[in-house]
Amino acid sequence: MTNEPIACAAGGIDITGCRVSLYPMKDHFAQQIVASIERTDTTAVWQQTDLFSTLFRGEAPSVVDAAAGLFINAYESKTHLVGEFTFSKGCPGDSAGDAFLNGDQAQPNKASNLMNGTFDVDCKYSFYVFRENNYMEEIATIVQLAETYGLAPRSAHYVTMLTGTANQLFGYFEAALAYAHDHLPHYVLEATVSVNSPSKKKAVSHD
Amino acid sequence: MTNEPIACAAGGIDITGCRVSLYPMKDHFAQQIVASIERTDTTAVWQQTDLFSTLFRGEAPSVVDAAAGLFINAYESKTHLVGEFTFSKGCPGDSAGDAFLNGDQAQPNKASNLMNGTFDVDCKYSFYVFRENNYMEEIATIVQLAETYGLAPRSAHYVTMLTGTANQLFGYFEAALAYAHDHLPHYVLEATVSVNSPSKKKAVSHD
Repeated sequence: MTNEPIACAAGGIDITGCRVSLYPMKDHFAQQIVASIERTDTTAVWQQTDLFSTLFRGEAPSVVDAAAGLFINAYESKTHLVGEFTFSKGCPGDSAGDAFLNGDQAQPNKASNLMNGTFDVDCKYSFYVFRENNYMEEIATIVQLAETYGLAPRSAHYVTMLTGTANQLFGYFEAALAYAHDHLPHYVLEATVSVNSPSKKKAVSHD
Repeated sequence: MTNEPIACAAGGIDITGCRVSLYPMKDHFAQQIVASIERTDTTAVWQQTDLFSTLFRGEAPSVVDAAAGLFINAYESKTHLVGEFTFSKGCPGDSAGDAFLNGDQAQPNKASNLMNGTFDVDCKYSFYVFRENNYMEEIATIVQLAETYGLAPRSAHYVTMLTGTANQLFGYFEAALAYAHDHLPHYVLEATVSVNSPSKKKAVSHD
């Protein structure tokens, strides 16, 4: 751990970022997204919203906290909601700006106890590693970590599937990013998280 | 071009694949997705639908044709629709099965003239290259190709943004995948395509 904002070797930038896109499958989707943005504490990260996503940049634990907040606060018990997350650090094309870095690694959403992430989620995700010759081994390490978080990782074409609670999943993302921060020069974690999918319900009722 | 199904060096598999997920932001989202799956001609690809996505595997031009068909056939003029696409080839962990490969590179959806992709789209995407030391240069080549397709690429954190018609965008994806197929051992193209976003409308009405 370091308070130095620029510590990554080989031209990389030591800022973790996440793009979060929310897709509530309902007519009044916009209100659900806006309400979640308003409820989520983003004081520990740099923040910007564009046409596609809300973007957080800063220290890894704070970025995961904001991303988890945005998804969990958007949860409604009867709405099919999908969240798309791109976590990344170390792209050689990245810039040093647009970041909140003070060494505190604050997690105001987790700390507030206002987030209720006890609901079940499904996740597909891929972990990409660059500038590492043994990239398949690093991916295997990250996937094994999901096992220890009780997320039962299963392989599928192009992705790994996970199942658990939202709290378990974001806890895992935090641990995966901490490992990646310490060991990898440049990574991307692309995750899609789904709740209340009618396909899921159908699968269960066939049992 | 070759009819040999397994031609990729270093253990890679010469099958192109795409995961397509559709997110229509409306109460009756499921019908819109099912109708598009029914309208799209998937006779030139291997196909499977899981909890998250419909997956196509086969020859690159046929895979892009099926993916374009699924998105364009799901278009409704008043619905905010987002599509998430993961195109990939060459993962060392991939298997030789689950593919439709006969060397024809058929594009039944494009050929049928039933697809109407003249509507405007916005896209964010990232192109990832593995097992190549000059991966940033290869990314630059792929992004420059978007310029020649009239998609006006702009950099943003973690992604490149594109604007054009659906036909232009999928034409570009086809060209990008053809380049990648010939030059790169393992790549992933992650794209999110948006139509009828209310954020977009708001931006225009402020002019």
